[in-house]
Amino acid sequence: MNAFIEKVTNAQAKNDSLVCVGLDSDFEKMPKHLMSSADPVFEFNKAIIDATKDKCCCYKPNLAFYEAMGPRGMETLKRTLMYIPEEMPVILDAKRGDIDNTAKKYAEAIFDDLEGDAVTLSPYMGWDSIAPFLEYENAFAFILCLTSNESAKDFQYLESGGKPLYMHVVDKVNSWNRNENLGLVVGASKPEQIMEIRIKAPKLPFLIPGVGAQGGDLHKAVEYGTLGDGLVIINISRGVIFASKEQDFASRAASELDRFNTRINQVRAGAV
Amino acid sequence: MNAFIEKVTNAQAKNDSLVCVGLDSDFEKMPKHLMSSADPVFEFNKAIIDATKDKCCCYKPNLAFYEAMGPRGMETLKRTLMYIPEEMPVILDAKRGDIDNTAKKYAEAIFDDLEGDAVTLSPYMGWDSIAPFLEYENAFAFILCLTSNESAKDFQYLESGGKPLYMHVVDKVNSWNRNENLGLVVGASKPEQIMEIRIKAPKLPFLIPGVGAQGGDLHKAVEYGTLGDGLVIINISRGVIFASKEQDFASRAASELDRFNTRINQVRAGAV
Repeated sequence: MNAFIEKVTNAQAKNDSLVCVGLDSDFEKMPKHLMSSADPVFEFNKAIIDATKDKCCCYKPNLAFYEAMGPRGMETLKRTLMYIPEEMPVILDAKRGDIDNTAKKYAEAIFDDLEGDAVTLSPYMGWDSIAPFLEYENAFAFILCLTSNESAKDFQYLESGGKPLYMHVVDKVNSWNRNENLGLVVGASKPEQIMEIRIKAPKLPFLIPGVGAQGGDLHKAVEYGTLGDGLVIINISRGVIFASKEQDFASRAASELDRFNTRINQVRAGAV
Repeated sequence: MNAFIEKVTNAQAKNDSLVCVGLDSDFEKMPKHLMSSADPVFEFNKAIIDATKDKCCCYKPNLAFYEAMGPRGMETLKRTLMYIPEEMPVILDAKRGDIDNTAKKYAEAIFDDLEGDAVTLSPYMGWDSIAPFLEYENAFAFILCLTSNESAKDFQYLESGGKPLYMHVVDKVNSWNRNENLGLVVGASKPEQIMEIRIKAPKLPFLIPGVGAQGGDLHKAVEYGTLGDGLVIINISRGVIFASKEQDFASRAASELDRFNTRINQVRAGAV
């Protein structure tokens, strides 16, 4: 079994949670009382991790929030990654996509320098922009398929040969997945499409964003995503980490996470 | 006129060159004699910039090569950007693409922290992943349209409504371009498509990679790209900066650049 999938599977079982906590730790949204520390974002992440590590299955820092802080932000990200318990898997949300010799360098940044367990990638440039990431023995990559944003419709829904672009991505990812280290990003804002994609890709792990701040349909995302055998990871970023911006931010994040876990597990149990 | 376009136009006129030098300064490819310095990649870039700044129209560092070196690599990139003469425009090749609140952070990284003049972006997630970059008054963004790599065919050629995906990108970029701060990335490995795209987008600036190490057709890329009124920037990375890996690397880079300039200017003059 792929090392990332094994870690996620274990964490989902141990913590009874499908939720990935998105560490989109925007410097501008830090609680005021942390601003006097040398590294407010690290202190924030540390408290969030302490409060959530037994209640989630994964962490997903989005690199944009660290890159915006310059080189020091990348140090903050590294400190954060060191602080996450070894048994908790980390998806580095980077959405990279470039020609092969460049993709090789992005892969070094993600898997060698930052030591992520998984990465998100854009499919636009095709297979040779993805292959260099998969040369890492334990690598795992989620490919953008149908994204949670409004403008996903600009290109992802274009019909070609009787199916939309995002279904072409599904077919390609299925065909590329000989080493069982690929998954799909499928936004919760499009629940009917989650079912359609799950039918075509019953075994692929799904990373499902868009449930929290973006208002996607949690119930259907879980119900349709968990059809088949493929792993489901429900990402929630702002909806958990910014539940409060006061002194109680970490305990409030934990409470929000509990609430999401309960709702998700009720759907999984068929109770709602 | 957009500040980036003005800088490029001036540099193209002053230096009689359409060539952008791609600073894909792979640490593993540094000349041996630089390896004893504290920052070999900066010393390399400094020498390349000194040798080429009067012979090109633009610089384009690809972020992957700096990210692969970790936080110190981002310091190297910043030192390099500070060293590039103020009048020379810089495209930060990042190929980013994410939902709006995240795209806003990538834009901060590119335009506030790194102070780039332009950026490359992926179109897969549509308009709202691009708009946050354009909120910067002087911003400019090149959108991936038809890329130079072999796997471009995986998705970019898919036909929908009688035209391939890359032509849908052309149409969208035309419609999004109200502030005249968008351009297209069109690979030199597909010269016939450059003409097809130029006819549909006669005014859009083109960034054309794929001429050097990737073996694209320089003659046709220039001939077809310069049809219409749109600016043309021919990017060459490895083909210039790694012309030699010995003590003479900078002078050899300058010679290769001279050779590309001569060939390109002969095509522009209609001499070949």
